[in-house]
Amino acid sequence: MSDSNLVISVDAMGGDNSPRIVVEGIHIAHKNNPDIKFVLFGDEAKVNAEMAKFSELKNFCTVIHSTEVVRNEDKPSQVIRNKNTSMYMAIDAVRKGDARAIISAGNTGALMAISKMLLKTIQRVHRPAICTNIPHKDGMCVMLDLGANTECSAINLAEFAIIGNILARHTLEIERPRIALLNIGAEEMKGSEEIHQAAKMIKNTHLDLNFIGYIEPHQISEGYADVIVSDGFTGNIALKTMEGTAKLVSGLLKSTIKNSVWAKIGLPFLLPIIWTMKKKMDPRKYNGAMFVGLNGLSVKSHGGTDSLGYSYAIDNAAKLVRQDFVQTIRDEVEHVDLDELSQDILYDVY
Amino acid sequence: MSDSNLVISVDAMGGDNSPRIVVEGIHIAHKNNPDIKFVLFGDEAKVNAEMAKFSELKNFCTVIHSTEVVRNEDKPSQVIRNKNTSMYMAIDAVRKGDARAIISAGNTGALMAISKMLLKTIQRVHRPAICTNIPHKDGMCVMLDLGANTECSAINLAEFAIIGNILARHTLEIERPRIALLNIGAEEMKGSEEIHQAAKMIKNTHLDLNFIGYIEPHQISEGYADVIVSDGFTGNIALKTMEGTAKLVSGLLKSTIKNSVWAKIGLPFLLPIIWTMKKKMDPRKYNGAMFVGLNGLSVKSHGGTDSLGYSYAIDNAAKLVRQDFVQTIRDEVEHVDLDELSQDILYDVY
Repeated sequence: MSDSNLVISVDAMGGDNSPRIVVEGIHIAHKNNPDIKFVLFGDEAKVNAEMAKFSELKNFCTVIHSTEVVRNEDKPSQVIRNKNTSMYMAIDAVRKGDARAIISAGNTGALMAISKMLLKTIQRVHRPAICTNIPHKDGMCVMLDLGANTECSAINLAEFAIIGNILARHTLEIERPRIALLNIGAEEMKGSEEIHQAAKMIKNTHLDLNFIGYIEPHQISEGYADVIVSDGFTGNIALKTMEGTAKLVSGLLKSTIKNSVWAKIGLPFLLPIIWTMKKKMDPRKYNGAMFVGLNGLSVKSHGGTDSLGYSYAIDNAAKLVRQDFVQTIRDEVEHVDLDELSQDILYDVY
Repeated sequence: MSDSNLVISVDAMGGDNSPRIVVEGIHIAHKNNPDIKFVLFGDEAKVNAEMAKFSELKNFCTVIHSTEVVRNEDKPSQVIRNKNTSMYMAIDAVRKGDARAIISAGNTGALMAISKMLLKTIQRVHRPAICTNIPHKDGMCVMLDLGANTECSAINLAEFAIIGNILARHTLEIERPRIALLNIGAEEMKGSEEIHQAAKMIKNTHLDLNFIGYIEPHQISEGYADVIVSDGFTGNIALKTMEGTAKLVSGLLKSTIKNSVWAKIGLPFLLPIIWTMKKKMDPRKYNGAMFVGLNGLSVKSHGGTDSLGYSYAIDNAAKLVRQDFVQTIRDEVEHVDLDELSQDILYDVY
């Protein structure tokens, strides 16, 4: 299986403007990841037509023909039964050991459902989680869960902390990531019982995690922590609130500039600032939500991203593949029995 | 008691730079609210010294001496036993019927605890909530609960919808506010069982509420709804995430301008834009978190606000006092038996 070490499987048909964006994304990502090979699943004729534009691609890309495509409106319960879609086949390549990670820009629910069914949760891990890198004022941090689990037990949260710690080490290259639980206050009594127990469990794992306690949402952007842990409902709320607020503020800036006579006169001075802001806030840089905790990495690219955005998703996946992320989780989870730890803590409390 | 109709009770000693900010805030708010009278509780000498700066104040302000002050580090369990603080006395004035609302810029936990103890929850209302007005691209909306109740039942959420509806009518002057439940998706199956049941209850209240279903956090800033309902944990997470993200984006803008040679040359053109942005995003405009559902209105001003910010909190309280907000809640809640409705819905589900 050493052959599969640095192979990423790609659903070439997922997302808008596929397979063009996908192939172009691979072309861009190759520059930073010359060691990675790709297997593309999709309509052979269409994929090959795109591949022909970049002669070097055939050296590290294989195309496997698939006859069907998962559509955006397809339900997870349907797609898990259709083995002929490009998405199913791409994920199955990871299950078979032919690739270490799968990337798709297609239907999120379908990707999660097929990934969970085929790749299965890592032994001793209770629940997979969705995570992504988000920006703060001094760089980036890892945030999870972002929606895979609406409700989470203390064990789930403690596991997310362990997985998030590995993610921050591998994707953000932070040696000793500061881990925090998302909460509505720094005081010990704030928040739910699950959060309190998770805090105790994370402290007691013997994994020497750099746990810094609770973080409030407004502190995320201050860069107080490198790993933000929450249940999927709360994480999803926070992520979408960030998205909305960033849009609100930049919309405000746009309308202010549009309605200002001074701005019109001073446009040559303003444009470099607008460009720099756009570059810094570029959502493409944060593309690639990772579905982690499974025997293989499943990455969801934004369906509407362009080739540069797609290449960022590949970059992140490549980092994790290169460092054998899944095996690292297995190794670390093996050293900590969260079920037992949970019993100890329940015993402490009552 | 008709005398108390338009009286607001003020904790003159709460917050930074009190009682100066408080007295100046009243001076500013008076222009828009000539019908409102104020009772100020605090150190008589200090308050009178500030009052002396504005000769007209004595016409609509009364000062009542108090010997003690609630400090920021005081615990709720302590402050509810000390009847001599300016905060306690100011809240007690509402209980006695001498005022309709109380405003304080002091310790939040203390204000909530004393308010709840003295004013008590309105009959048939199960839980009070914290709410505030937040900005969206076309105006403002009401959001509640922001932290009074970490966990909420469907009944609590339905009540918040009823109260939020009244708040939006009275403070934002929206005739038929669009009410939405904060959730992580628009689909019926998304979110918790409490949210699903609350949706059913709000539809079935016979109050003819303009309920538009679920709202996702990124849609808040788009102005999709006028009343955003959630449990206190989720609401607090969303509010603090907005705060953090707005700060992140404006910090990014600042650093971009600071590091740009073009910006330095074009500063005269940029300044009007920066000023307009500052004005539009001014947090003072949204000052005044309201603690609602009690027999009297309790308003928390930000402790660090200035006199203009304090005057905004008074403005909002005055609007609610003028329209007899508490009585409106009593009237509307009387028409809907949420406990019975809850039973009906449980029966539907199982």
